[in-house]
Parts: sequence; structure tokens; C-alpha cells
Amino acid sequence: MPLNLKTHTEHFTNPLYLESGRILEPYDITYETYGELNDDKSNVVVVCHALTGSHHCAGTYEDDTKAGWWDGLIGPGKAIDTDKYFVICTNVIGSCFGSTGPMSPQLPHHNPYRYKFPVVTVKDMIKAQRILFDRLNIHSVHAIVGGSMGGMQALQFAIHYPKFAKKIISMATTHATQPWAIAFNKVAQESILKDPDFKQGYYDSEVIKEHGLAGMAVGRMAGHISFLSHESMNEKFGREYKRNDGLYELFGKFQIESYLEYNGYNFTKWFDPLSYLYITKAINIYDLSRGFDSMKEALKKINSELHLISFSNDLLFKSSEMKELSDMLEDVGSTNHHYRDIESDYGHDAFLVELDKFKDYVAEVLK
Amino acid sequence: MPLNLKTHTEHFTNPLYLESGRILEPYDITYETYGELNDDKSNVVVVCHALTGSHHCAGTYEDDTKAGWWDGLIGPGKAIDTDKYFVICTNVIGSCFGSTGPMSPQLPHHNPYRYKFPVVTVKDMIKAQRILFDRLNIHSVHAIVGGSMGGMQALQFAIHYPKFAKKIISMATTHATQPWAIAFNKVAQESILKDPDFKQGYYDSEVIKEHGLAGMAVGRMAGHISFLSHESMNEKFGREYKRNDGLYELFGKFQIESYLEYNGYNFTKWFDPLSYLYITKAINIYDLSRGFDSMKEALKKINSELHLISFSNDLLFKSSEMKELSDMLEDVGSTNHHYRDIESDYGHDAFLVELDKFKDYVAEVLK
Repeated sequence: MPLNLKTHTEHFTNPLYLESGRILEPYDITYETYGELNDDKSNVVVVCHALTGSHHCAGTYEDDTKAGWWDGLIGPGKAIDTDKYFVICTNVIGSCFGSTGPMSPQLPHHNPYRYKFPVVTVKDMIKAQRILFDRLNIHSVHAIVGGSMGGMQALQFAIHYPKFAKKIISMATTHATQPWAIAFNKVAQESILKDPDFKQGYYDSEVIKEHGLAGMAVGRMAGHISFLSHESMNEKFGREYKRNDGLYELFGKFQIESYLEYNGYNFTKWFDPLSYLYITKAINIYDLSRGFDSMKEALKKINSELHLISFSNDLLFKSSEMKELSDMLEDVGSTNHHYRDIESDYGHDAFLVELDKFKDYVAEVLK
Repeated sequence: MPLNLKTHTEHFTNPLYLESGRILEPYDITYETYGELNDDKSNVVVVCHALTGSHHCAGTYEDDTKAGWWDGLIGPGKAIDTDKYFVICTNVIGSCFGSTGPMSPQLPHHNPYRYKFPVVTVKDMIKAQRILFDRLNIHSVHAIVGGSMGGMQALQFAIHYPKFAKKIISMATTHATQPWAIAFNKVAQESILKDPDFKQGYYDSEVIKEHGLAGMAVGRMAGHISFLSHESMNEKFGREYKRNDGLYELFGKFQIESYLEYNGYNFTKWFDPLSYLYITKAINIYDLSRGFDSMKEALKKINSELHLISFSNDLLFKSSEMKELSDMLEDVGSTNHHYRDIESDYGHDAFLVELDKFKDYVAEVLK
């Protein structure tokens, strides 16, 4: 069967009550679906995206050449088989691909919120999704799958809507963001905030899309250091120069430098600086135990079959964090969770690029 | 005996021939000595400083409260015992504490070199030191000790002046800078270059000392991530907020953020941006094998008794790099080298803060 890619935006006029005590009202949620919803609505798989991802996780738009960010995993006959499952991926609130975020118009004047946008948390992100699913008359799902911040959302679903998903797969993530991850985000945030072209949040989006924003580029470069492992950096770049004509040994640019530059500056053409600030904030304050007496109390809420996957050389969300989460689940008597550490040289990026290492497992879990 | 701290600057009018083919002429070298040179000049210990270090490695100036950067290691009765040894530490060329660097006056006009300053390498740094020692009539030394870029200098001495030092202790460093270290430096370099207050190198130093340079602060924050280990970040900061009054869970500043801010912004008050660019460049292009057919050919030159020390959780210059260097020395038939990995939770900073873990070893080697 074809992928049956559909993109929608739903408008909500009721207030979204946020963890901060503030409200978002009205708000939009943009989402994408693949496959067909079956009659008893028992074949829904929710996919959650990471920091800079979007609802576009599979297929290729007609006017584009680049496939969705998990296209290798999602589609007809693939691990998340759209011949069997109805897949939904929503753009998180706070992001910049259709769902309401800091550059969305604020009522009544319709100017962008900018800094007036409220702090959003991972819990707020999944609450908004849950409200969307309600509108779609989907009150429970077969599975939720996500990596990195998508894995945070999957875990947050598991705790706050324990009866919502039968199965949950959370990969390359953690139960509470650790200081080194906060530190990398801090560098990016400071770098954006201190760029005069950011204009203290009052930048012109079109100008930034055209000319880039150096502060965000630099911040993103720091991010990329955390996405790679030392092994993959050695393999991909080593100490190679971009050109090597002798002179370059003293004056040239290393391949790794060129990689960071390209990814850093290119990034500023397609992502919004305020969204980057708000979403990195959401990641930094992410902590499954918030609102509970302890992490273990939070974990006791989990009812779904839970699959935790880490990648051996992930320097951002380390295997040891996932192992710790698994051990805590053990301690609170969970009998319905599975933890698997996947050997990979790719570091944090593995969840996006080493699909071969986990796609069979995902297919098996979904069965 | 007293420390006998003396600070000097020597002026050189002969050209310094650099690895790049360019020359530096004239140039100054600022250095500091402690203890007394003995009659047969057999008690000299050279100490080499790291990226942002200076010649001031021990003692406290009369008008200051902060001791030199290795004061815990160097002094009367300490591991590098100034009652026995005559210790010399020179500020590297390219730096900003007295030796000639990018903000030094260029002849004939006496304006600062700025970008006209030549690329310097670690080999150039030690060549300049060697010339200084010649002027001081010191033609061989008892030992050379350094960590991080200081360790690079120590190794470079071992290869290029094989008969100069009897013993060499090189710690928390590598034989050739690896891509993740290059990447961290790249973030700092880009961050400085893109700051409009850097004025493409034509900044006013006094203005920067007073108001700081955000780009350099952000770059230094990234650097600090690489200086710490995950273990030390967890222990020092965890997910603690700077204040914790409840609200802070969503709106507050994490301790790690506050640490990075303080160290980042404070740094720009005492270090020069162009020196940071030039010295990080020197670190990035550092490769002991340059000019040789292979690393092993380079290592065959070593004649000094060589002591390599790594720190188990160093994320910048990893234990595995030092182990690899040790293995290569083994392969080329060296019988005069010793490698020791020190268990430490401090990461790269260990060479500055965990002196207790290696000072006895240093004392023993020097004996």
C-alpha cells in the first residue's frame, strides 16, 4: 500500500494549561499521518520527534527531495509498517513547523509572542498531543516510539497517561537531563542571546533565514560535538584536512571544522532561534520525577510495556543513564520493562542513522 | 628556603624562524624562576603551561591573592622542590602575558600585529624557550614537566631536542590533537570571530577587559565542558539550581549554567581574544609526527626518560590516547618510558586540581 502521507493542522480554542501555571490559548497543532486507521482504532503508533525534528518523519513531499527524519524506519513494509499501523507524528508546541511556538501570532494583536511565549515542558508537549488525539477520537494507542527528546516524550506519556499506550519504545534518552547536556544547551542559548542580530528576540525571521544567525550556528556546532562519539569523529574526520596540499598542515581547515561550519550555518536557515531557546529549555528542565516525591514514585505509575534502548557511545544521553532508569524500574517492582544497550560507534546520532541496529527490534515489539 | 620568585623578560633581536617559514623579529620572552641555580647548572626543572596559563606557576605576587597555577606542586618542600631545583616557566610566544603575541607591537610602526602575527606551533613555542635557555647559559636541564598544552611542549622537547632534558613528565595530553578537541576549539574560534565586538581583530583591548567579549565567553564555556568529566559535573552540580524556591524548577538557572557563565565571562577580562585564536590553532595543528614519515619515526628520536600520565576520565585528551602513545613507544623499542593512568573523577582539570594523586610520583621521578 502507498505511504498515504497526510499533513494537517488542528486549531484549538480551549486553553492549554501548562505546567508553569500559564495557559496557551488558542493554539495549533500540526501533525502528519501515514497508513490507515483501522476500524477499531487499534493500530495507532505515535512517533515523537527530537529537538530540531518535526512532524515530517516519513515519506518525501512532492516539492522536496529530502525524506522525513525516520523514513528508514517508517513506511510500507518497514519496521513501523504503515501497511499495518496508522502512524501519527505531531510537531511539538514551542517548535517552528506549524504547531504554536514563540513566533506564532499572539492574540489579540497577532504579533509574534517572542519572549511572551510561556515556558513549555516535555509534559506540556505530550499534553497537547493527548488533546489532539482526543479530538481525533483516539483514546488509546498501540505504541509510542521516540528518540532523544522524542524518547523523553514517550517516557512522559508512560508516566502521565499510564493507560494510553500499550507499548512504549524510548531510545537515546534519559529520565532527567544531566549537567553535561544542560551545559551544551547553555552554550547554545548564550550564543544565541548574545548575537546582536538576535536583537533580544526581536529579529526578523526572513532576514535570519536568508543571512543566518552566527550565534545560533556556533551554538549548534557545540551541539554537534555532543551528537557524535569520539569513535565516529575519528572514523569520519580524524585529523584530515578539507584540502591537503602541504601548506594546509598549518593553514588549512580540518574536515571536522568544515563539518561543524556546514551544519552550524545551514541550520540557521531552517530553524527558529526562539524555538531553539524554548525547546532546549524544555530539555534542560525535563525531569520525570517533577511533581512526585521521587523518581521511583514517578516510575511506579508506568503501566505500558516499556522498551528502553541506549547506544553504547552516546555522549549526550549515556547508556549508564538508561541502565540506571532500568534499575530503578526493577527496584519498584516493574516486570514489564526491557532494556537493551546497542553497540554503536555513532554516538547520540545513532538513533537517526544506525536504524539497522534496532529496526528489527522495533518491528518485533510492535507485533 | 624562600621560594625566590623572580619574573624577567628577555628581548631577542635575532629572528625566530617559525615552522610556517615566517619569522618573528624581534621578540620578547617573559619567564619566571623559583629557587637557585646550582653551580654546575644540573638542577633546572622546566615547567610548561597550558592554553590559558602563564609563566606564573608558583608563589603569589605581593599585590595579588591568587597563587600561581601549579603552586600546590612547586615550592619549598613541595613535589617540585625549589629548595633543590631551579624552576623556570616561560610564557609561550603567542600568549598575552609578556611574551610576544598578536597584540605585541610590530616593527616598524609599533602597532599591534593582530592578524599579521604569524601562525605559531607548539614546536615554535619550545624553540623560543630553547633560545631563551641558551641565553641563560642553560644547555641541558634535569627535567621538563607539563600538562595539557604544557604536556605537548614537553613531548615536543623530547623529540626535537633529544639531549636537552634528562627526564620528561608529560600529563593530560596527546601525541596529536584529536577531532573532538579540535571541535571544541573550533566552537570557541567561531564564537570569537563572529562577535561584532571582536571587530575582525581590531578590538580595543581595554574595552574588552572592561566589558568582556561575549563571543569569547561563550567559546570558553564550551571549553569548560571539555575540561570536566561527567562524574565531576554530577558531583559538583547535578541538577541543582542556583536558588531553589520551587519556582526555580521551571524558571531558574542551574548551578552548571551559573558555573559556565561565571567562568566564561570572567575569562574575557584576563585573556586576549587573538591569543586565544592563535594558541587554540597551535593546539589544533599540534602533531608530533609532522616533519617525520610517521609518528613512530618521530618517537624514535626520544632519548629522555619519559613519564606519561593520563587521567581516567579526561574527555579532552583521553587515557586511550596516552596509552596509544605508550604502545607506539613500546613498538619502536623504547625502554625508557613509563605510562601511568591515574584514577580521577575530575576529567581534564585533574592535572590542575588533583595534585595529591600525582605529586609523589613527580617528586620520585625528579629524584
